[in-house]
Amino acid sequence: MKTLKHFMQDTVRFQENPLGAERVLSPKGALPQGADRLDANLPLYADETLIDVERLNLDSASFRQLKESEEESGTPIADRILGIVRERGKMQNPVTGSGGMLLGKVIQIGPKAPPRFEVGDRVATLVSLTLTPLYLEEIRSVHPSGSQVEVRGHAILFAGSPAVKLPADLPEAVCLSILDVCGAPAWVRRLTKAGDKVLIVGAGKSGALAAAAASEKIAAEDLWISDISEASLEKTMSLGFAKNAVQVNAQRPFEFHEAFQRAGAPRFDLVVNVSNAPETETASILVAKDGGKVLFFNMATQFSRAVLSTEGLGRDVELLMGNGFAEGHAEYTLNLVRRNEPLRRFFEV
Amino acid sequence: MKTLKHFMQDTVRFQENPLGAERVLSPKGALPQGADRLDANLPLYADETLIDVERLNLDSASFRQLKESEEESGTPIADRILGIVRERGKMQNPVTGSGGMLLGKVIQIGPKAPPRFEVGDRVATLVSLTLTPLYLEEIRSVHPSGSQVEVRGHAILFAGSPAVKLPADLPEAVCLSILDVCGAPAWVRRLTKAGDKVLIVGAGKSGALAAAAASEKIAAEDLWISDISEASLEKTMSLGFAKNAVQVNAQRPFEFHEAFQRAGAPRFDLVVNVSNAPETETASILVAKDGGKVLFFNMATQFSRAVLSTEGLGRDVELLMGNGFAEGHAEYTLNLVRRNEPLRRFFEV
Repeated sequence: MKTLKHFMQDTVRFQENPLGAERVLSPKGALPQGADRLDANLPLYADETLIDVERLNLDSASFRQLKESEEESGTPIADRILGIVRERGKMQNPVTGSGGMLLGKVIQIGPKAPPRFEVGDRVATLVSLTLTPLYLEEIRSVHPSGSQVEVRGHAILFAGSPAVKLPADLPEAVCLSILDVCGAPAWVRRLTKAGDKVLIVGAGKSGALAAAAASEKIAAEDLWISDISEASLEKTMSLGFAKNAVQVNAQRPFEFHEAFQRAGAPRFDLVVNVSNAPETETASILVAKDGGKVLFFNMATQFSRAVLSTEGLGRDVELLMGNGFAEGHAEYTLNLVRRNEPLRRFFEV
Repeated sequence: MKTLKHFMQDTVRFQENPLGAERVLSPKGALPQGADRLDANLPLYADETLIDVERLNLDSASFRQLKESEEESGTPIADRILGIVRERGKMQNPVTGSGGMLLGKVIQIGPKAPPRFEVGDRVATLVSLTLTPLYLEEIRSVHPSGSQVEVRGHAILFAGSPAVKLPADLPEAVCLSILDVCGAPAWVRRLTKAGDKVLIVGAGKSGALAAAAASEKIAAEDLWISDISEASLEKTMSLGFAKNAVQVNAQRPFEFHEAFQRAGAPRFDLVVNVSNAPETETASILVAKDGGKVLFFNMATQFSRAVLSTEGLGRDVELLMGNGFAEGHAEYTLNLVRRNEPLRRFFEV
């Protein structure tokens, strides 16, 4: 298996595989995301792209679980990752269900692949590792701080899988941080209209980018940011996108609502939940105005809690699930950071 | 306690209680939906409405659980319900977390309550029982077929809680069936634009109403309905709203996609998931066009599955959670049925 990629690399199958269904080993009829096992073998299908993988950027929930399990069982993280990828043909943590993204170099492009890269380009995937066929030869090192793992191996990109060429003008770590959350600012930009009152719940990385995106359409007076942490709030407010900050716990809807009333806040046209805490749905909905929208970019969001509490409050609001993909989202977000020096420094820390 | 409501009925507190926070006993800071226990005692707050409750229409998941537990433990359903309501001050099944709705007669209206009813009106609540303060004196009978329970007791309606006066021209059972799912057609009507291609996934009650709503904006040639059951599909297709039917299992995304391709279907501007089956998110997303919308009115929807599979497929679609409330949704849906004799018969069966 060790030299598989070098061995098979020149041939390509005639058949196309746009959704990746041909690489699902089980269960039958599933798509790669829902599959238990993927086939990462070569040759490529005609519309696939082969990547020489350098680094995996694991989802932080997955990495934390692997680290805890290392402490309990004594099995090194590297062995666990190799085991998972050998068994599943993809890096999907069986406990958390989550994946991450990868970095590498394009080494082969199927004749019918979309014309987005050239051989030799360094690229990052914008889809989850949970659906990316992956074969690992070895793990070279594990960086516990950044959830990153240096590896040797190959991955296969489907025609429909978003990926982006790494720009030369930004540090790699900054790029990764930005690309990881670039869906939120792209959707905020689309959903914000001139004159809107907008609230960002959560002042982390996504919150800073969401605020930057909203500030392209509305005045700082009309943009509000909230967080439970005073330090996070101060750091994001210092970027200057918003004039209004409310420090409050979004897990306590009534206190949240009262804090905004005391601050003289309007009801919002758009509330963007980029918190990472569970049970923050009701607070977000409560401060939206009738006819407004609430956009959830929080992976702890519960569908039933969101819809039942909106119905229970009799609030006529549109509830949106944050889709991590939007046409041009990576370019837009990288440009947002390029245009704004303080925002760039925010990501360099 | 038995005569509490008659005893206290004439006095009303000065304070208002629009979100119901004053009636939350625990935990502190919660809203009624998230509370463990509510206070259903009188007198009313100034903006509340008192209802003499005649019937509870339990959520079907809750009723099934109560029935199974009756068979296992021998505790009659009636005793279980009385126990839950005595302990929690609301009818929220502790296992399923779900509630239902209620029917009754308005017997007192606080001086600051919204001017929507008169004393003596027969009304149905459009909010979940999971947030409605309820006091039960007795359970008079249990109708196993329809998840309905005849009771004696009182409930309290907050100023912000949607409720509707029962119309005289439609049978009560038809009204209840319709009011239970009136959010879906109201949102479909809003989201459908002339010329759109629309797909309804799920041909049950909600599917029939959603199809009726879509058909007010688009031609039958542009409306598609799918279901796994041939019988359900035939029944809903016979209403004449749509010209295109696809019988397929939405839990198998790849088969689903292929079935639509074979049928010569377009990619859809709007996909409405009103199925009640889990794991139907990916199929729904797969047949939506870029720039399109997918609306989930399926309580089995999983937030993470929906967003990760959309991102994984690189689909630029708007993902909407079905909000059970929309301004005027009950009136709109009742009128939809009034205008359409076959649809009315569909609900009478």
